[in-house]
Amino acid sequence: MAVVSSPAAANMPEGNSELGMQKAYTCQFCHGATGISPRDDYPNMNGQNAEYLFDAMMAYKEGNRDGAMGRLMKQQMSVLNTQDMADIATYYAEQSR
Amino acid sequence: MAVVSSPAAANMPEGNSELGMQKAYTCQFCHGATGISPRDDYPNMNGQNAEYLFDAMMAYKEGNRDGAMGRLMKQQMSVLNTQDMADIATYYAEQSR
Repeated sequence: MAVVSSPAAANMPEGNSELGMQKAYTCQFCHGATGISPRDDYPNMNGQNAEYLFDAMMAYKEGNRDGAMGRLMKQQMSVLNTQDMADIATYYAEQSR
Repeated sequence: MAVVSSPAAANMPEGNSELGMQKAYTCQFCHGATGISPRDDYPNMNGQNAEYLFDAMMAYKEGNRDGAMGRLMKQQMSVLNTQDMADIATYYAEQSR
């Protein structure tokens, strides 16, 4: 099985967790203030790999994830730049599991 | 912000964690035997919400997730049916965080 590394990960800026906490203001309604989702059909993000979170956000932003959730998340990503996403990814990755 | 529930989650069969452990044989190379990924750009899955995991697998299977990772995961999902995915999702969701 081919191992694929994600193109986005290679371009992830250095993330700032403190800024990420502030920028994650709207994320918390679905993913929780510390990444524990209030809903079973939404992902927990606490302790997730920062690079994966960044890639997933980029995938939504670039329209690589379709469907109802994909469209909702693309909308959320539309107001974030790559530094914002790196900060938010770093913040949630640092939240204890 | 509209709250969207995922269509797939409504159709998730009851998952069997023991069967899921066996069926997750190929998943472990990228996601770890207990869901702790050996790579930062792949997601950890231990303790993730089972419904979310099932939805994500369905999104890959149905081609709603594109890009290099999307294509690789679609291939992996092609050999799994919804019961398999529910079992695997339940297995990883039960792994301690």
